[in-house]
Amino acid sequence: MTPAQRVYTHAPVLIVGTGLLGTSIGLSLRARGVDVYLADSSPIQLSLAVDYGAGLRLTDDVEPGLVIVCVPPEHTASQVQRQLEAWPDAIVTDVASVKAPVLVALRDSGVDLSRYVGVHPMAGRERSGAMSARSDLFVGRPWVVCVHDQASEAAITAVRRLGEDLDATVLTMDPEAHDAAVALVSHVPQVLSTLLAGRLVGNAQAAQLAGQGLRDMTRIAASSPDMWLQVLAMNSESVLQVLTAYKDELERMIAALGSLDAPGALSELADQFRAGNDGVTVIPGKHGGTNEFDSVIVMVDDKPGELARLFAEIGEIGINIEDLRLEHSPGAAIGLAEVSIIPGARETLVTELEQRTWRIVG
Amino acid sequence: MTPAQRVYTHAPVLIVGTGLLGTSIGLSLRARGVDVYLADSSPIQLSLAVDYGAGLRLTDDVEPGLVIVCVPPEHTASQVQRQLEAWPDAIVTDVASVKAPVLVALRDSGVDLSRYVGVHPMAGRERSGAMSARSDLFVGRPWVVCVHDQASEAAITAVRRLGEDLDATVLTMDPEAHDAAVALVSHVPQVLSTLLAGRLVGNAQAAQLAGQGLRDMTRIAASSPDMWLQVLAMNSESVLQVLTAYKDELERMIAALGSLDAPGALSELADQFRAGNDGVTVIPGKHGGTNEFDSVIVMVDDKPGELARLFAEIGEIGINIEDLRLEHSPGAAIGLAEVSIIPGARETLVTELEQRTWRIVG
Repeated sequence: MTPAQRVYTHAPVLIVGTGLLGTSIGLSLRARGVDVYLADSSPIQLSLAVDYGAGLRLTDDVEPGLVIVCVPPEHTASQVQRQLEAWPDAIVTDVASVKAPVLVALRDSGVDLSRYVGVHPMAGRERSGAMSARSDLFVGRPWVVCVHDQASEAAITAVRRLGEDLDATVLTMDPEAHDAAVALVSHVPQVLSTLLAGRLVGNAQAAQLAGQGLRDMTRIAASSPDMWLQVLAMNSESVLQVLTAYKDELERMIAALGSLDAPGALSELADQFRAGNDGVTVIPGKHGGTNEFDSVIVMVDDKPGELARLFAEIGEIGINIEDLRLEHSPGAAIGLAEVSIIPGARETLVTELEQRTWRIVG
Repeated sequence: MTPAQRVYTHAPVLIVGTGLLGTSIGLSLRARGVDVYLADSSPIQLSLAVDYGAGLRLTDDVEPGLVIVCVPPEHTASQVQRQLEAWPDAIVTDVASVKAPVLVALRDSGVDLSRYVGVHPMAGRERSGAMSARSDLFVGRPWVVCVHDQASEAAITAVRRLGEDLDATVLTMDPEAHDAAVALVSHVPQVLSTLLAGRLVGNAQAAQLAGQGLRDMTRIAASSPDMWLQVLAMNSESVLQVLTAYKDELERMIAALGSLDAPGALSELADQFRAGNDGVTVIPGKHGGTNEFDSVIVMVDDKPGELARLFAEIGEIGINIEDLRLEHSPGAAIGLAEVSIIPGARETLVTELEQRTWRIVG
């Protein structure tokens, strides 16, 4: 973080709700030198966020220019309305993961919406609360600004620039398109994972055979039900549309599997598998951004100090490790380190590592 | 790998089929000094496996004591029969991921099955072929020996000991229980992932919002259709049973979401989410083994050499890194390194790292 770094967001900023997202925004803005004030209905949660350095407690002499509402989805609209009324000159945004119902509720309230623009940062974690907050939570992640026809240019710009200050990837969508998109890429995957994990209850013996596929497919099923019930209830229309289409495909798959000798059954299955292959390619690279990393896979002997030697030598070569994944089985003689690096650095790294007798396997 | 390491498997071993599993078994047995011979209908695949050091080409003077059939599922039964007939004194096994139909086909063939016992190593990867083979592929992974009433004790023992030689976790199941279990933990997750990824086709804009949840849920949808059509066709009965139960739950979820105001709708959703939470806990720890690792999460500054310093110091402390995951966003000042270590070593590592001024965050 260099002091010369540009910051668009004008202080003071008020963050209402110091859970994972609110605290992370605070940490990030504080790291950029922006004055941040915090409020939360839970004194403990608030103290924790203050202790973490996400901002100061709101005091009577502060007049925020930007208010960021980070409360649970079902309380978002009423809280946005309250903040718009409390600060007649401030721009107000919210980070709820469902956008159209919030806007509808605000319109119904009759409050002037020129100073309001909502956003959805696609930056959740399985862990929640201030304790899981990170200043880099939004870096490279989609920051979906949901514009509407009453919003002023100033409000749209402020909310976009907040995303830029957090180094997020700023996108613009209308609230309905946003809600349909997250139904597909977030809410329905959650439902499918939950239902799959539910099938494991009472099947402990079968679960002994679990591999990485099942673990990946059920990871998000560990998420807390509370927030998800709110999200699904608020976005039920879009979720139902995707779930119903999914169920139709599932029924076709079941029909084909149930009559494998029937003409066309196998080609039906093959078509669905190919569509799955195609669908995977539609997902953009890491973090939803455009700059995918290159990677190099290096064999590493399983003894203390070997990984350290690898990283020391990559450091000597002068290349930064952007991400890393170690594939390693306990007791095995060899591990694989998959080192992610900036695009274009692969050839240099491979050449230099091979000169140092590392075995490159991918 | 110490020369003193015990090996139960008696040479020479013949591996028929040098794809991912066959080549990996060869690499692992060769590393233990066992004589391994290889055969494959593809001369290119065979040459590659020989070049990799997985074994030697089978020659006329070799009389294998153990034959391991590693061909695609639909060719498994006929290949096992051929090998039983070709080597009247050898024990024969196969690694197909569906076991009951193989046994049924072999019984129908009338061949003597006392020397045959099948196994299923739960050790697939998205990558296939000899090129992806690894000598440690089976370490700690379930190795499901599928016994049947005609099998001799000698055959059962040889196949169990092969798993022990590969450092796998050896389990015993009857073929029908195995096929029902893998329908639940492997085949149905594949179908669900495939169908979800299929919904993304034509939805590139929505896919811009993809987060880690969607990526995890669709990773295995990239798998090759060829093998999966064989597997699903061979295990269609068990798969249909699980898929149908899944569809019933999906319909209950859809009904509840479609009538949220009806009495019991929200509690229905909550029950399903809680069942999902419970189901996740049924999955055993890493690699399906019983020894879960402890982990320590360390903050690491994002500059060349910092990770190297961390690993060097963990090496000095004398603790081996069993697994590692780096959470890091490009451009951010901080990354998180989640270091997995053997159970019981956490307290020492945390104390020692904190003395060296590392910040432990989990």
